[in-house]
Amino acid sequence: MIRISFDELTGTLCRILERSGFENERAKACARLFAETTLDGVHSHGVNRFPRFLEMIQNGTIDIHGRPELVRKFAAIEQWDGRSGPGNLNASACMARAIHLSQEFGIGCVALANTNHWMRGGTYGWQAAEAGAIGICWTNTMPNLPAWGTAIPNLGNNPLVVAVPRPGGHIVLDMAMSQFSFGALASYRERGLLLPVDGGFDITGSLTRDPAAIETSQRPLPIGYWKGSGLAIVLDMMAAMISGGLATHQILQDPLRETSLSQVFICLSPSKIQSEDASTRISDEIIGFILQSPSSGEPIRYPGQKVVETRTENLAHGIPVRKSLWNELSSLLQGAV
Amino acid sequence: MIRISFDELTGTLCRILERSGFENERAKACARLFAETTLDGVHSHGVNRFPRFLEMIQNGTIDIHGRPELVRKFAAIEQWDGRSGPGNLNASACMARAIHLSQEFGIGCVALANTNHWMRGGTYGWQAAEAGAIGICWTNTMPNLPAWGTAIPNLGNNPLVVAVPRPGGHIVLDMAMSQFSFGALASYRERGLLLPVDGGFDITGSLTRDPAAIETSQRPLPIGYWKGSGLAIVLDMMAAMISGGLATHQILQDPLRETSLSQVFICLSPSKIQSEDASTRISDEIIGFILQSPSSGEPIRYPGQKVVETRTENLAHGIPVRKSLWNELSSLLQGAV
Repeated sequence: MIRISFDELTGTLCRILERSGFENERAKACARLFAETTLDGVHSHGVNRFPRFLEMIQNGTIDIHGRPELVRKFAAIEQWDGRSGPGNLNASACMARAIHLSQEFGIGCVALANTNHWMRGGTYGWQAAEAGAIGICWTNTMPNLPAWGTAIPNLGNNPLVVAVPRPGGHIVLDMAMSQFSFGALASYRERGLLLPVDGGFDITGSLTRDPAAIETSQRPLPIGYWKGSGLAIVLDMMAAMISGGLATHQILQDPLRETSLSQVFICLSPSKIQSEDASTRISDEIIGFILQSPSSGEPIRYPGQKVVETRTENLAHGIPVRKSLWNELSSLLQGAV
Repeated sequence: MIRISFDELTGTLCRILERSGFENERAKACARLFAETTLDGVHSHGVNRFPRFLEMIQNGTIDIHGRPELVRKFAAIEQWDGRSGPGNLNASACMARAIHLSQEFGIGCVALANTNHWMRGGTYGWQAAEAGAIGICWTNTMPNLPAWGTAIPNLGNNPLVVAVPRPGGHIVLDMAMSQFSFGALASYRERGLLLPVDGGFDITGSLTRDPAAIETSQRPLPIGYWKGSGLAIVLDMMAAMISGGLATHQILQDPLRETSLSQVFICLSPSKIQSEDASTRISDEIIGFILQSPSSGEPIRYPGQKVVETRTENLAHGIPVRKSLWNELSSLLQGAV
């Protein structure tokens, strides 16, 4: 690992995107989203994912010129078409629009069809919270999780993000419907570790903590068993229904060609009906009460806490990036323009 | 068990409520909600809960004359005060109001403070779906779940309901943030059964399927471990913040005096931006695709499916009610008026 400053990382990614044909402003915004995700310690959807992002531009899955367009609108709810544009730029634009609707109506919803992977879902939660809004958003994905009672992937792991603004540090939950992502399974396997809790079924149908066994069976475990399966179903159904886009079962099960995703962005503006002082007191007291509880032995954690710690450390000391990856990215800038 | 018709059950509960001082229309509505919950097979929050409901009226926790009042409003978001009224009547009124807002604005939110236990959360999901709306609602509860990393109950199990309308049978998810409720733990223990999966920690801090060990430790497991803990935190925070009501840590930890709960009801009206034919096709195809998948051995289930089956059977053959409970309820009507 080497440590790269946020500005250097953003600048490098930006120049690569410009070389790929992005207009300057969009290259900057897209690079910043990748760099912020890495800054916050979510490497799987930050710079580690950047080479795949470039590959999906080259294979035509992502249209770098695709911008979201309004399809239909009714007061506080809107339907947008992502036109196969970069997933993080599309999602960021739609969350901005949902924030705007919540300021106008107290609550607003933007549903986005025909978009690409949004990278880190939490990004749009932080975006809402920074604007003083409660943000609730989710995406469907290609099939990668069997519904409860079934033996093949027919649901997405459909990450759900819930963000609550708090002056002392926003509370941002960013969770997939599978207990562990395939990225997390690979990471445990490569380190020769068992999962801390059961993460799926092996090929005999027994629960297991062995990451390789789950990669083989393709049967990761939904959070809460049948409960997470049910939640994944309704998230997919709502996303397709409100956006008018595709449901998980219609999405190509190929990590390099996963596209035409459906997403929902809901924002609420609590300041329209509640003083900011009261909101702050409520969130601070809830967190304070939990942190004062007797520990079970493990560190007490709440959503968003670790991100703030990691961000602070990485801003001070630079962002850890794999040396081989950094060399790979740098080499992209050394060829002919 | 004896089987009682829906009309007889509703009539009996209605007469008991009238004797308790309920006005006729409110007695009818409250009795119908308890009877429908029992009809749907959710005994724990149906007629089995009715004696406790009466006890909480007698001890002053529930004010039978309390009706929700609008506190603040901003376009599509409203804050209501439940005035300690019966939880099911309050919740039903607020979901009706959220449905109305969704028809006016495409999406609407009603937050309710100072209310009582809503009984079966799914009730309000079915209510939204029957009206053609997507319904998302949740409640906080008294502390009954330790946050991840802590050893005492400091979170509620905060049930979350998501309902999607579907002509062939609404999709209604109704799930608590604990893997098993204390009611479910007691039921397994009484039948001498282990839980089907780990349901909590024993007093040594080990995961266990022994229901009695979890009742002793008071440490049930959140769904998805740290994930459900995080979701319970944000649900409580949003409920208190939007409603202006109490958070879980402020709610009395006494099943007979649990009150001043905070709830959120969000409705979306997909028909404002999507044809009903398209919505129906989307939901039918998702369910169809799952049901056609190879089975893992267990029955394939989706949210709401079992309710429809149970409802159909109970309408045809009567609703199973414990004989001793039915005698107890009937005796309440035989004393002096």
